[in-house]
Amino acid sequence: MTTATGLSLITDTVEEGRDLAIKLARLTVKATQPDAEVRGRLRPVYAEDAGGLIAIAHVVATEFATIAAANHYWR
Amino acid sequence: MTTATGLSLITDTVEEGRDLAIKLARLTVKATQPDAEVRGRLRPVYAEDAGGLIAIAHVVATEFATIAAANHYWR
Amino acid sequence: MTTATGLSLITDTVEEGRDLAIKLARLTVKATQPDAEVRGRLRPVYAEDAGGLIAIAHVVATEFATIAAANHYWR
Amino acid sequence: MTTATGLSLITDTVEEGRDLAIKLARLTVKATQPDAEVRGRLRPVYAEDAGGLIAIAHVVATEFATIAAANHYWR
Amino acid sequence: MTTATGLSLITDTVEEGRDLAIKLARLTVKATQPDAEVRGRLRPVYAEDAGGLIAIAHVVATEFATIAAANHYWR
Amino acid sequence: MTTATGLSLITDTVEEGRDLAIKLARLTVKATQPDAEVRGRLRPVYAEDAGGLIAIAHVVATEFATIAAANHYWR
Repeated sequence: MTTATGLSLITDTVEEGRDLAIKLARLTVKATQPDAEVRGRLRPVYAEDAGGLIAIAHVVATEFATIAAANHYWR
Repeated sequence: MTTATGLSLITDTVEEGRDLAIKLARLTVKATQPDAEVRGRLRPVYAEDAGGLIAIAHVVATEFATIAAANHYWR
Repeated sequence: MTTATGLSLITDTVEEGRDLAIKLARLTVKATQPDAEVRGRLRPVYAEDAGGLIAIAHVVATEFATIAAANHYWR
Repeated sequence: MTTATGLSLITDTVEEGRDLAIKLARLTVKATQPDAEVRGRLRPVYAEDAGGLIAIAHVVATEFATIAAANHYWR
Repeated sequence: MTTATGLSLITDTVEEGRDLAIKLARLTVKATQPDAEVRGRLRPVYAEDAGGLIAIAHVVATEFATIAAANHYWR
Repeated sequence: MTTATGLSLITDTVEEGRDLAIKLARLTVKATQPDAEVRGRLRPVYAEDAGGLIAIAHVVATEFATIAAANHYWR
């Protein structure tokens, strides 16, 4: 998932691929909102909101599609 | 769908592929909101909301696209 | 579209592929909200709402992309 | 775009592919809301709403992706 | 991007591919709302709205995915 | 990521691919809203809004899917 030289899309397992999908989504949020304090304040807003959780699940599904293709679907 | 070593994207049937798509979406929600009590409280919010149900259907469709490709569309 | 052993993504025509896409979306909604009475109550909410109809059309487009690929686009 | 036996995803030109994408989106709306009077009432709601127009453009982009792949991108 | 016979998905550069993605999105909006006066009135609504701009960026990303595939990613 | 002749989808690393995805999304926003002052005013609106950040993450995930395919997933 991470190598000495940085991020890789290749993972050993489906679970690691799911974790990477979540990580990629979070990295975008960090790049858009670098202030950790603000991110911390927003976390409960979406984590306790049905719409927010579903929207996050959609982003993760989109990132995972890429990761799964990169790994030939771990067939 | 699950093996001794964990998740697999490979399923025997289309139905199992649909079930897995729902499961993957739920796993993201659990990772984002680990508190089962909060998740339980949010469930009726989206399950009795037209917009929430459609949004979930979109996430599942996205996850299913990946699973279907992994299974060569069960052709 | 359905075989003796269950769902299939393979259809004879584009029209059947479209119908299947709608069916798959509905199956997700049923799995998320098993109560037919609640689903019946929600139907007019989205069927008479512009945003709801467009959102459903998006889900169906996503499901159809998978079905079309499964059928080699009925070329 | 349509044959004697019904819909086809194969079109002669990119423009026809775009038209077909719009048509497919409309067919979903018709299937979900068969009442022409209701659809007519909803049309100005989204056609004069920025969010509605963008949402429709997203659906059409998704349908078009499928049609373009079916036509080998008219290369 | 355009030929004597109409639209083409094939472009010389990535930049032209981006421009075409924006153009395709606009063509859908024109087809849905043919009244230029109404479109002109709606423009500031989304161009000065954060959500509107992000939604447009999503549509363009979806159109661009198709165009990039059509051009073998300009490799 | 950029060459003497302009944008390229080919990057050396996954990280550069992620940066490019963010850059492409921003270029669309600039093309839609060329006024830097307006963009500057809108930035805190989405960067301090949970829904806005998730929506941006979705756009970036969509752009990244294209870039990752262009780079054969940096396998």
